[in-house]
Amino acid sequence: MSISYANLDTLKSFAKLRSLAKPAHLKDLVTEERIRACRVPAGSGLTYSYAAKSFTPEALAALQELADEAGLIPKYKALLDGEIMNTGEKRMVLHQLARGQLGRDVIHDGKNLRAFYLEQMEKISAFAAKVHAGEIRGSTGKAFDTVVQIGIGGSDLGPRALYIALTNYCAGEGEAQKMRAKFISNVDPDDASEVLAGIDPETTLFIIVSKSGTTQETLTNEAFVTRRLAAAGIAGLVPGKHIIAVTSQTSPMAKSSAYLTSFFMDDFIGGRYSATSAVGCAVLTLAFGGKIAGELLAGAAETDRLSLQPRAEENAALLDALLGVYERNVLGCPATAVLPYSQALSRFPAHLQQLDMESNGKHVNRDGAPVAYATGPLVFGEPGTNGQHSFYQLLHQGTDIIPLQFVGFHESQRKDDLDFEGSVSQKKLNANLAAQIIAFAKGKDDPNPNRSFGGNRPSSLLYAQRLTPAALGSLLAHFENKVMFQGFIWNINSFDQEGVQLGKILTSQLLKGSSGDKALSAYAGMLGV
Amino acid sequence: MSISYANLDTLKSFAKLRSLAKPAHLKDLVTEERIRACRVPAGSGLTYSYAAKSFTPEALAALQELADEAGLIPKYKALLDGEIMNTGEKRMVLHQLARGQLGRDVIHDGKNLRAFYLEQMEKISAFAAKVHAGEIRGSTGKAFDTVVQIGIGGSDLGPRALYIALTNYCAGEGEAQKMRAKFISNVDPDDASEVLAGIDPETTLFIIVSKSGTTQETLTNEAFVTRRLAAAGIAGLVPGKHIIAVTSQTSPMAKSSAYLTSFFMDDFIGGRYSATSAVGCAVLTLAFGGKIAGELLAGAAETDRLSLQPRAEENAALLDALLGVYERNVLGCPATAVLPYSQALSRFPAHLQQLDMESNGKHVNRDGAPVAYATGPLVFGEPGTNGQHSFYQLLHQGTDIIPLQFVGFHESQRKDDLDFEGSVSQKKLNANLAAQIIAFAKGKDDPNPNRSFGGNRPSSLLYAQRLTPAALGSLLAHFENKVMFQGFIWNINSFDQEGVQLGKILTSQLLKGSSGDKALSAYAGMLGV
Repeated sequence: MSISYANLDTLKSFAKLRSLAKPAHLKDLVTEERIRACRVPAGSGLTYSYAAKSFTPEALAALQELADEAGLIPKYKALLDGEIMNTGEKRMVLHQLARGQLGRDVIHDGKNLRAFYLEQMEKISAFAAKVHAGEIRGSTGKAFDTVVQIGIGGSDLGPRALYIALTNYCAGEGEAQKMRAKFISNVDPDDASEVLAGIDPETTLFIIVSKSGTTQETLTNEAFVTRRLAAAGIAGLVPGKHIIAVTSQTSPMAKSSAYLTSFFMDDFIGGRYSATSAVGCAVLTLAFGGKIAGELLAGAAETDRLSLQPRAEENAALLDALLGVYERNVLGCPATAVLPYSQALSRFPAHLQQLDMESNGKHVNRDGAPVAYATGPLVFGEPGTNGQHSFYQLLHQGTDIIPLQFVGFHESQRKDDLDFEGSVSQKKLNANLAAQIIAFAKGKDDPNPNRSFGGNRPSSLLYAQRLTPAALGSLLAHFENKVMFQGFIWNINSFDQEGVQLGKILTSQLLKGSSGDKALSAYAGMLGV
Repeated sequence: MSISYANLDTLKSFAKLRSLAKPAHLKDLVTEERIRACRVPAGSGLTYSYAAKSFTPEALAALQELADEAGLIPKYKALLDGEIMNTGEKRMVLHQLARGQLGRDVIHDGKNLRAFYLEQMEKISAFAAKVHAGEIRGSTGKAFDTVVQIGIGGSDLGPRALYIALTNYCAGEGEAQKMRAKFISNVDPDDASEVLAGIDPETTLFIIVSKSGTTQETLTNEAFVTRRLAAAGIAGLVPGKHIIAVTSQTSPMAKSSAYLTSFFMDDFIGGRYSATSAVGCAVLTLAFGGKIAGELLAGAAETDRLSLQPRAEENAALLDALLGVYERNVLGCPATAVLPYSQALSRFPAHLQQLDMESNGKHVNRDGAPVAYATGPLVFGEPGTNGQHSFYQLLHQGTDIIPLQFVGFHESQRKDDLDFEGSVSQKKLNANLAAQIIAFAKGKDDPNPNRSFGGNRPSSLLYAQRLTPAALGSLLAHFENKVMFQGFIWNINSFDQEGVQLGKILTSQLLKGSSGDKALSAYAGMLGV
């Protein structure tokens, strides 16, 4: 089947969407019936509720037409089957393949990539099992109890967010965490110095993560690690026994003999999509064991499968993408807030910020022509209820409307709760969440204009019984697939990041002393460079 | 002198500002000369550089006229002198008084408030000195080595951001930190459960922080603390010896005998402005000692004094405020990114998010009439270089222009650095920062449109030799005063937060079972409430 690519503003369905009457105020739309009706399974027991989004039945129908006209599901299938979807870099896009194959076998240079990714996962599991069993030990014979991941961007934000999200789950299950994990990312020397001051080198395993093997921050921080090991007096035996690598087979790191072992990914898994590849799974498997990591991948794979549904009302990621485009390109909203009512997801918004803004913050279409419409929104967020005592003031009563993505769970992770003044904390947490959805949607008239709430602030809710590894995998895949569908709608390449290159080039010129730009030198001088 | 209050869109200087020709592209504006010229001291050795902001000399002159016409400095002076600037709640606004008096004495109910705030600081210092000396000990006779702050919003974000910012400073100075600090904020039970599982109750001092003494999250988490103490078998002696309070003298907490001691603030210091009051200083003094806390306050006071300058080109906070209004209300930018190139400031953007969005996310003016112009922008950020590998793609090549606030320092805090490939990490960090400013401003043409950068992305830079306690205080006060000036310009009340009330009311109704709203009940049911 042939797929055609066209800019959003050339689609008939988009013209229709823009011509429709705007939705009524949400206080009139958000009824009990609509709340019960507007729900879609999103995988692993997760449900996507969109009753408090601003749309009419006509808009929903036009969005379905848009999904069909833009060929979103055929494009997703083509991506799964190995089509070159990263057009700028001429690469396939295969992060879904690392967690369960849905399309055809993908063969590259005679290699079955499904088998390759699976093999890496099995190598990781086997390695971690030996570490946990004490069969692999540090250079002085002590068992490893700590793992430190050194990486930046996608090698840091996703793995770190998932690690934080699972720590209390394991505490609550009574299944003891195997190793604690720490992360070093920033080239600011204080980052590495502080983390390395807080670990025992004899019992620490380091993971250096860089797909290219050339990431400036990561190689610099690796040098901090080797110095720390040497300072601990175990230099003669290291780094051979204390450092492993996650990289691509073609990188300089892959050829190094400095590592105890290496796990591989490749150019078909972008950094921000790599949390379910070796990049995330090495540290997560070492921290929690192979079972937990496997459940995470299975959850993501289940959502990948649900994302194949052509009908938006049965496909949560697709529907979320379409409603987001409606808000961005018809209602004109500049940003989206991600608000998980779960302390475990404290760094999940930071990961989504990269996932969404680095994927869809683009000004040219997949063929390189400038687009004449807004693409990816600004994404930010903090956990509730903390955010309620911070920036919610602006969300409720500011002069811009910012759509909201809530996330919530029936149960806590640690299952350690306390009744205070008639309710447990988990109930208070979720009462706050329900109350906020209604407050944002309906607002409130008040004779005191300072206490008057305009309402009509749209939100959606992703909820499940508990934040399990599977639900976390589904949550991650939901947003990955949403971002993918939105990229297809905007006709952009969501899988490159050319916008990060210029800064790298200027930095390199500055450090080599080869920049002729006097303004750059003036700033460098002010900063002591 | 009489002060008049008027909406921004009624000011002659604003009409003039909007009528001016737009600035040329920043690639033509950002010259070595402009970089050297466009700098203002911001206190404690901090400098505000605005060379890469979009403005013409005519716009700058019109902004000065705006500052004069709106009476920004007289309003600031009136605030310092105790005028009722929080008009909705009919309160004075006195956070600057807690760190050094600039205006007249402020007498309230016969009490000199300068003396009152000073007395609280002295009580905190004396108490902390006794804890550090082992004169005040836990109920089993052990010295305290850990302090846990229980608070939310302003009782959490500011103190936590400052604590993180100073930890490595103390490590680097060789002046040992006195106690480690931890924080519990969220009503999610996993937050309290996790923190309390990681401390030794016998050596831990808890601080309950709530101005009203009625904050739901904080009282709930206090119950977790008392249960934890009881479970440790020291119930008979507690909480009398393990819990202190920071609250107002009129709150229910102030009357409780449960606390070892209490430190007070009052209604004239708003939560988000309370980091330099007892709210922040109790935990910071316990963690680092009175000398460090004193330097922080002195830095803030120095910037408060600089903020009195009537000429914007000599007043960094005023100029920052004016340029921000120009970006928001003339250039039409919806958001601002705060990008500190300092791992120590990793949670500083989260604090600024509350400070700015809760203060100026308002839709009515100080008299309660709706305004017809945009007020406070969305504020977000993460430290560099991490952000470069995340959302900078959108900042460089997205379809919206988002102004940037960079922060940087010549030296690291820990002074533990390493030469790798010809430069130390601190130099790499700052080379990246300088390169980003130029990349955003100038952009780059490229035959490959995917590698083409439009540039003309405005930024400013706050920089100093090192992130000392004084520089941190100045940084904090700079943004507080910027937000204050912007509130004056928009003619709004930056000191209340009525937008948080509706959600509280609905939550309370839900927990009491007294809500008649079926939609609210439907959401509550989905979330297991």
